[in-house]
Amino acid sequence: MPKILINESEHKIEVPILLTAVSGKIRVKNRSIVNEYGTPVAVRRDGFALNNYVEWQIGYDVVKKEADKLAESSLPETEFVGANSKTKALYELSEYIWYFHKWAIISREELESVVNYLNSIPANNLIDNNSELQIDRSHPIAKNINGFNFEYAQVKYPLLIYKFNGYEIVTEIKITEKQYAVGTQPMLYLCFPITKLKARTNLVGRTAEIKEIANFEITENNIEVFLEMLKMFGTLSDNHRHDILQIIDTILA
Amino acid sequence: MPKILINESEHKIEVPILLTAVSGKIRVKNRSIVNEYGTPVAVRRDGFALNNYVEWQIGYDVVKKEADKLAESSLPETEFVGANSKTKALYELSEYIWYFHKWAIISREELESVVNYLNSIPANNLIDNNSELQIDRSHPIAKNINGFNFEYAQVKYPLLIYKFNGYEIVTEIKITEKQYAVGTQPMLYLCFPITKLKARTNLVGRTAEIKEIANFEITENNIEVFLEMLKMFGTLSDNHRHDILQIIDTILA
Repeated sequence: MPKILINESEHKIEVPILLTAVSGKIRVKNRSIVNEYGTPVAVRRDGFALNNYVEWQIGYDVVKKEADKLAESSLPETEFVGANSKTKALYELSEYIWYFHKWAIISREELESVVNYLNSIPANNLIDNNSELQIDRSHPIAKNINGFNFEYAQVKYPLLIYKFNGYEIVTEIKITEKQYAVGTQPMLYLCFPITKLKARTNLVGRTAEIKEIANFEITENNIEVFLEMLKMFGTLSDNHRHDILQIIDTILA
Repeated sequence: MPKILINESEHKIEVPILLTAVSGKIRVKNRSIVNEYGTPVAVRRDGFALNNYVEWQIGYDVVKKEADKLAESSLPETEFVGANSKTKALYELSEYIWYFHKWAIISREELESVVNYLNSIPANNLIDNNSELQIDRSHPIAKNINGFNFEYAQVKYPLLIYKFNGYEIVTEIKITEKQYAVGTQPMLYLCFPITKLKARTNLVGRTAEIKEIANFEITENNIEVFLEMLKMFGTLSDNHRHDILQIIDTILA
């Protein structure tokens, strides 16, 4: 991702969103009316429609050793130690909160209240440990398909959707298997309609240009959503909680 | 993957399996007794156990333009045009069948019977079109978690398991969303116990060496399983069926 643009005088951050990426953390998707489930859009070929939205697997840190990614942070000199013992800098979500705290739009008290909230959650209630949010596999049943005698099962993944009151911003938490260990791994996605983007010309009804970028604007009118998201990240797992508490320490230091 | 070893005189193929890959098409997994669901094993750290198995997302083709991957095929001069209009060579599954047909262990009649079988399946019965094998999303319900008012849904993915009679080889077909389009995408995995591997020393109870490779042996005793798998691949979707029919044409040419 290109670097964010920080407008100190107007207290605004413009986040450049690459609209044409077919892999990576940001995707343009189409919300089906039937089941509300998003499918990717080929924006260069099919263009943008009114019901398209941006799905963004937003991050909150960058490992300092990863020079290329560190260069994308506007705060590369910031520093905290993550739950994985790696030295990290603020990035994306934590970067935005840093500026709005500096601009006195997010107060010390608000950040301290997130700390108190996170410290109050029993470890068993964190999302990756929550017994009601586990991955289920149904008992297999026999099913003949085209002559093959299969066993058929369903693997059921929890999905949590959070609608920020009064905003068109939604977070989705998808719970999947950990890749290299036993257990679940919650992943948080931020979703907002493409109509929230500032593009060179109106997006709806046209195809994307090569490597087209549009901006998402963060201001005092929507920064509360990002603070809520930081708080929500801290509830995903013990490691996430550790990281978010360290990040708030870093912002308040 | 390193190239396969072909033993012409004994009619054997040795497939080298990289045991330590943490990404890629082959993974060592642990079968939990509770739900039969596999989780990845850190074989360098935790070592191998008796209930470990190899999960292999086996392929059947290689795009000829992809020189690095083409170099892994022992039949780079073979050629067919895939459903995606790309020129491809035989690879993995199709490669094995090619040799066993050449060695007169798989007969022309057997391959023609796969062709007839695949041509007899109505398009609606192919796995990606099968109405009983769609991805389900439950209607969301309200769920308060740690003070956040979420909507909670389950996303349900079909899983098909096929046990080859008399073999310890299993295929799993996982049905997921297509990545860049509407619809489902079935993916076929071949699973077999690590005890089927020929390693330098017995695997069970020790950790893996750096980049350790063990061999999986294909002989006339188990090649029928691979022929069944080719047939099964042809039932996944119209594109898969096209490719498998082209592959059999190429083998019989």
